[in-house]
Amino acid sequence: MKIGILGYGNLGRGVEKAVAANADQELVGVFTRRDPSGLQLQTPGAKALSVDVLPEMKREIDVLILCGGSATDLPEMTPRYAADFNVVDSFDTHARVPEHFAAVDRAARAAGRIGLISCGWDPGMFSLNRLYAHSILPGGKDYTFWGRGVSQGHSDAIRRIEGVTDARQYTVPVPEAVQRVRNGENPELTTREKHTRECYVVAKEGADLDRIEQEIKTMPNYFDAYDTTVHFISQEELDANHKALPHGGSVIYAGSTGDNNHIIEYSLKLDSNPEFTGSILAACARAAWRMNSEGQTGARTMFDIAPAWLSPLSGEELRAHML
Amino acid sequence: MKIGILGYGNLGRGVEKAVAANADQELVGVFTRRDPSGLQLQTPGAKALSVDVLPEMKREIDVLILCGGSATDLPEMTPRYAADFNVVDSFDTHARVPEHFAAVDRAARAAGRIGLISCGWDPGMFSLNRLYAHSILPGGKDYTFWGRGVSQGHSDAIRRIEGVTDARQYTVPVPEAVQRVRNGENPELTTREKHTRECYVVAKEGADLDRIEQEIKTMPNYFDAYDTTVHFISQEELDANHKALPHGGSVIYAGSTGDNNHIIEYSLKLDSNPEFTGSILAACARAAWRMNSEGQTGARTMFDIAPAWLSPLSGEELRAHML
Repeated sequence: MKIGILGYGNLGRGVEKAVAANADQELVGVFTRRDPSGLQLQTPGAKALSVDVLPEMKREIDVLILCGGSATDLPEMTPRYAADFNVVDSFDTHARVPEHFAAVDRAARAAGRIGLISCGWDPGMFSLNRLYAHSILPGGKDYTFWGRGVSQGHSDAIRRIEGVTDARQYTVPVPEAVQRVRNGENPELTTREKHTRECYVVAKEGADLDRIEQEIKTMPNYFDAYDTTVHFISQEELDANHKALPHGGSVIYAGSTGDNNHIIEYSLKLDSNPEFTGSILAACARAAWRMNSEGQTGARTMFDIAPAWLSPLSGEELRAHML
Repeated sequence: MKIGILGYGNLGRGVEKAVAANADQELVGVFTRRDPSGLQLQTPGAKALSVDVLPEMKREIDVLILCGGSATDLPEMTPRYAADFNVVDSFDTHARVPEHFAAVDRAARAAGRIGLISCGWDPGMFSLNRLYAHSILPGGKDYTFWGRGVSQGHSDAIRRIEGVTDARQYTVPVPEAVQRVRNGENPELTTREKHTRECYVVAKEGADLDRIEQEIKTMPNYFDAYDTTVHFISQEELDANHKALPHGGSVIYAGSTGDNNHIIEYSLKLDSNPEFTGSILAACARAAWRMNSEGQTGARTMFDIAPAWLSPLSGEELRAHML
């Protein structure tokens, strides 16, 4: 199947790598709102093109993977491109999923296309694990821990503080909290008890470090509800030790059947968050194309994808080798 | 939906508990090849009935959950009852899945029913995790560890040895092997390197304990490829400490995107293997009924179930609360 990628930041480059690893997918082009001549693609034969030519390429692209941000890009982008293409996105603003779903559903239905939203690991694989666990053992409790990993949103928030030139923020699960959940204690955990935040900050020469540290630790929503540590380091140290984008975490579900308790845990340890998310998007593109080929239209999430549709293997092969 | 259970051993009782915990399911009856008057059901209002009356109850049962054994019961039972009912089984002889699937598919298609096979945790949830991981990161390697938990097949094998009156066998993953996989070392592991076997054996008075131990340790297929320890204990000790049926394990997948490595792990820690498996069967019954209500017929596995179909919640509720 023929794949287009819209957007060429970290996530778009992750999708490109994933498409190259999938023998049944071919990258037609990467589309950008910037000057396409500035893009250095990794895929031989694929073209960097302006978004302006997308409307002319309806027939050449089976699925368009949207690699924009959830805050402002995707709410506009996904419904818009669902009018011309089967689309897949990684929309991750949990609270706004219902309205995004509705907007994509309207556009995709009208166009006879599939719009698959919120594909990634959270939302995505973590959501699936919450759903499977709740469906098997109703009445239990799910816990989600994120990290240890880089939160790009929190890193950006620190970089906006006056006197900061660069920053990396790691979200870290509290080991004691994870252990209590694994033990089946069903604890009630506050935000502060679940995660801590570690910040590596490069400050301008002469900046007031105490003020920066205070501004970080008291920042509403981002840091004020957490125990936060701030380390001031040099740009060289940040570049040497904190340039990667690792992430991960776990969904732990504690359920029971009467007196018997059961713990279900799904965990990820990822060297590269955008490359892993990009790999999920590429697998979801396969499913979107199949759903649409069978005549399905409208918005979908990973909840609606029969797992076999994510795989290039046939039903016979899957049953023989993976069941 | 109205549920029937065929077979009332450990698994059938586990399904009964699960159906009672599902607000949208009602247990019509438990069917047995034995004298139904000998069955003590836990569900108020449900009847214990002979299998002989099943053909008369096609209209009263939406899904029949088959709780027989994989060795001899299910290969005959699942195709047979798929001719009259939507059926769900936990067929777990991995090597014989293709022929079982084909037989169930023929019967269910001819009857316009759904036959959902191999629902449980392995095959079942573990299979799904192998499939999701391979689909996201092609070219990686999956490892499955079972335990610590009671293997009923191995316990039975020990009980067949002359001079043995009772036995419990625990399958135990080798911690160093699990750790190497989690570290992303991609080791090649022999059978012996992955699991050990612990046996708790009650012998007849005066029995030759050395001979029994040797017979266990050298038993082909069951024990000869493993490091096995044998503990002789009294019946009282076995009854006091080894009557439960805990199990669990993990599927660990090591994949990569170029230079970046990713570890995906799904693990279960179950106080009761049959009650957890029964809970999966009950959730799968919900999906089987929905698939058939939408006009689908033939054999299916959990690979073919859109996850949302396992849940009693609507698409809107799932997206709002679990995505």
